[in-house]
Amino acid sequence: MEEIRIPALLDAHVHLRQGRLLTAVAPYTERCCSAAVLMPNTDPPLDTPERLEAYQAEVRGHFKHCQPLWTFKLTEKTSLADVVHFKKLGCVAAKLYPEGVTTNSAGGISLDVLGNVGKGRDMPLDRTLQSLCDYSIVLSCHGELPGLFCLDREAGFLYHLGRIMHRFAALRVVLEHISTRKAAEFVTLRGYANRLAATITAHHLLLTLDDVLGDKLAPHHFCKPVAKRPDDREALWELVLQGHPNVFLGSDSAPHLRGDKECAAGCAGVFTAPVLPEVLFELFEQRQALDLIPRFTSQNAQRFYGLTPSERTITVLRHGWTVPKECAGVVPFRSGDVLSWRLVTPA
Amino acid sequence: MEEIRIPALLDAHVHLRQGRLLTAVAPYTERCCSAAVLMPNTDPPLDTPERLEAYQAEVRGHFKHCQPLWTFKLTEKTSLADVVHFKKLGCVAAKLYPEGVTTNSAGGISLDVLGNVGKGRDMPLDRTLQSLCDYSIVLSCHGELPGLFCLDREAGFLYHLGRIMHRFAALRVVLEHISTRKAAEFVTLRGYANRLAATITAHHLLLTLDDVLGDKLAPHHFCKPVAKRPDDREALWELVLQGHPNVFLGSDSAPHLRGDKECAAGCAGVFTAPVLPEVLFELFEQRQALDLIPRFTSQNAQRFYGLTPSERTITVLRHGWTVPKECAGVVPFRSGDVLSWRLVTPA
Repeated sequence: MEEIRIPALLDAHVHLRQGRLLTAVAPYTERCCSAAVLMPNTDPPLDTPERLEAYQAEVRGHFKHCQPLWTFKLTEKTSLADVVHFKKLGCVAAKLYPEGVTTNSAGGISLDVLGNVGKGRDMPLDRTLQSLCDYSIVLSCHGELPGLFCLDREAGFLYHLGRIMHRFAALRVVLEHISTRKAAEFVTLRGYANRLAATITAHHLLLTLDDVLGDKLAPHHFCKPVAKRPDDREALWELVLQGHPNVFLGSDSAPHLRGDKECAAGCAGVFTAPVLPEVLFELFEQRQALDLIPRFTSQNAQRFYGLTPSERTITVLRHGWTVPKECAGVVPFRSGDVLSWRLVTPA
Repeated sequence: MEEIRIPALLDAHVHLRQGRLLTAVAPYTERCCSAAVLMPNTDPPLDTPERLEAYQAEVRGHFKHCQPLWTFKLTEKTSLADVVHFKKLGCVAAKLYPEGVTTNSAGGISLDVLGNVGKGRDMPLDRTLQSLCDYSIVLSCHGELPGLFCLDREAGFLYHLGRIMHRFAALRVVLEHISTRKAAEFVTLRGYANRLAATITAHHLLLTLDDVLGDKLAPHHFCKPVAKRPDDREALWELVLQGHPNVFLGSDSAPHLRGDKECAAGCAGVFTAPVLPEVLFELFEQRQALDLIPRFTSQNAQRFYGLTPSERTITVLRHGWTVPKECAGVVPFRSGDVLSWRLVTPA
């Protein structure tokens, strides 16, 4: 049977959650990743070094082959001492959540503070961003501007991001889970060449808004930013298929229990971890681009984050299988679908 | 306390369903309407005179003050004899559902047939449309073109509607539940002055896509056509506030049991019947347009459908109340919200 070996994935954006959910979902990342950038929007969020240390203790036992890469949540109270401490704890990125824009983003950065970055006043966020430059910590952005119409929020954030990058010329930024042609075009602006990257999820390479509400309403396809138009999806593929060096996988795998999705006020997030390499192989094969997988799924992120390439490899087999209806109480992406590639689990 | 008396509503588009759900929801329409245009997408649909007769027998016992206005579902098999029979049964409109576009729309009119209307070939739909002209039956359209991106479907249908109206110069048409500026502009085209009307729902006067998925996912705000941009909503208000004579209320109140909304594949429809006059008073008051309510909620539709004005009136009182969380197993629009107007139920 046909099999392909590639470097293990570097998932540059994943939500592992806490407690029982963490225990249930961590093995899906452990099985196929050399490293994973862990998002800090736990409850409470990882916004102090103490909370991060406690989370590190909780997470570490779940990983053997996959290296957890830590992040912390930027708040308006993050101090220089915090940044130094986060750096010592191994943080590679500080996550900027505009206030109220997604799951557990309350207590993020307010629009007011965001709008005043780099305007010459002595704002706390300005000092924090300067310290990210000084300590080589990446600014990781949930790039949506609250208050705008849902489909315009990503484009609206780019204006602020442009100002921030202009003001802090040494700042390195990842624009997470891009979903629009406008964001894709922003990533290719010459001026930002080596210090701006973007992650793309597996589900944004497949879904459009039609898959969320074009037929029946599909809560398991609902995420932030919401999937957009077919043309937006094509713009993401254009970046991937040109092998753009600063564009890489961040799955944004975000498990929510079935009851938190199938309800009157459903949570945002698509749980792709259980099918991540399999779905990527399927999608890249459809685009006749299996050869581009390694740079998108590991090499580009390794270079951008300055990580030593891992020796770990994974093997994917052409072997049809049906995605389970549920994994640990969570409905996985492509639930019930037949996929044509399957990860070989090491003995 | 302040109270306002108006002519009872003419709800020009409502889904009453069948069986137990019909029994549960019919009183909400009976309480406030002089007449209601009943949609034929039951299961099975009202696509033969026999089915309509059976449905008429089922529905009639539920109404005393409200006159049911009957419709039938247009199919590719609808014959001239059917049209004559439907007319005798009192049908005021034939409903065109493009195949697969909304709840129970399977067996509607295929894109292929729609695209060939008026092209000079002897197509069955052409003969049926001519018979609608001959027998003064209105063509009622779910104006969305399947196969297009969800937000573009309404605009895509307008092209076909324009062709149909050009070919059948005596055809009178209602474009149902319009949701976009493009549809609103189409309704104001001079050439169609007296033979094209549009219905607008209460929920499309309030919601945008932000209310469906801008925050948490809200299945009880999910409907077809889906609510669009704020600018689209404003275009609907512009029609209403200019008192456009051919623009009137069609609530599209569409009850689905809670479990059919809060699930992995949620049904489309907003259940506004239990709060219809109350919500309209609130919305029109916010626009300082309480005086425009009668023409929007009854007079325009009466004139377009050629109905004798009803003597029935309803009284709405300024009196705060909280909308129930659930009505007969269905979550009503504005569930749990406090509304400031309330219908006075006659003793």
